[in-house]
Amino acid sequence: MSRWQPGARDRLEAAALELFTEQGFADTTVPQITARAGLTTRTFFRHFPDKREVLFAAEDELPGLVASLMTQAPPAAGPMALIAWGLDVVARTRFDGQREYLRTRRAVVHTDDGLRERELRKLSVLSTAITEAFRDRGFDPLTSTLSGQSAALVLDTAVDDWLDQDDPGPDGERPLTGFLHDTLAALRSLTAGDEPAVAG
Amino acid sequence: MSRWQPGARDRLEAAALELFTEQGFADTTVPQITARAGLTTRTFFRHFPDKREVLFAAEDELPGLVASLMTQAPPAAGPMALIAWGLDVVARTRFDGQREYLRTRRAVVHTDDGLRERELRKLSVLSTAITEAFRDRGFDPLTSTLSGQSAALVLDTAVDDWLDQDDPGPDGERPLTGFLHDTLAALRSLTAGDEPAVAG
Repeated sequence: MSRWQPGARDRLEAAALELFTEQGFADTTVPQITARAGLTTRTFFRHFPDKREVLFAAEDELPGLVASLMTQAPPAAGPMALIAWGLDVVARTRFDGQREYLRTRRAVVHTDDGLRERELRKLSVLSTAITEAFRDRGFDPLTSTLSGQSAALVLDTAVDDWLDQDDPGPDGERPLTGFLHDTLAALRSLTAGDEPAVAG
Repeated sequence: MSRWQPGARDRLEAAALELFTEQGFADTTVPQITARAGLTTRTFFRHFPDKREVLFAAEDELPGLVASLMTQAPPAAGPMALIAWGLDVVARTRFDGQREYLRTRRAVVHTDDGLRERELRKLSVLSTAITEAFRDRGFDPLTSTLSGQSAALVLDTAVDDWLDQDDPGPDGERPLTGFLHDTLAALRSLTAGDEPAVAG
């Protein structure tokens, strides 16, 4: 759809994020976004159904991204190795270098309950995509569901910690892959802990 | 607030769920709900800000419920034992006997994207409440976050499987505690699996 307006989608996303940050999500209108981007509202509505969806544009790519990753994954890998491998690739290809943008986006999402709910749906879309890819790979339904949900919660937790880093020191910021590694190790340690004592 | 209308909240919830099921969430109005419940719209708005929130009335109780459970939990229990113990208590006190109601409610939630998002927020409220209770108990922030998220995902997955059971056989339906036990065991088995092979 973007062939008649090259770059329009990216320009609309950048303009919207600027305006949401400057004047608030609720007080920003679609005409203001298109004016900032130098485009028409008609172009806006070719790309997005409303201003909220501008912040979630990447969601549509998630199922395809997960499916594509699966075709490249080590064939004999078990579910935890697949999760670790996939998150590592995603961190390097989709998150590296995006920290300032993602911090700004997160700050906007945190200002509005509706945006927070929408962000949870995005995480749920990711989780479901991973679950379906694991089922396609032959894992049983429960393992696939828990793999999708665990991968999504590890990514969400690690990204939050990565974004929370204050001004990095002279060695620069710690990469997301380090936070993912720590979060996965903590999840393994947590679940390997004391035997669940289910009451009689 | 309900002292001047005993039972009003429960009657509004029951009436709303009936109407959402019969004619759809989108096509149901607050005056229809209050007419079915034999109450006024003024009473409705004393209890709920809008028709959506009727389906999420129990959410406000979650933090208090989690905090109260924590005071009763075995003092020396580690995080996994706490999760298993707490979920078991919740299954017995809050879910047993509610299966038909919860199936009806889930069917309504699944008809509407906005309700699905709201349901994710409810799960997030539960996760956050557990995380805070674990921090108050002295667990480190990462363990607390992962405990809250793991407990919420195990509950969500187990409840879904429990609700999915078709007509129970002569022995009656399998209780939620059994599904929780299986889901926790599967999560432990998943995360204890093959060593994550993080590239480079």
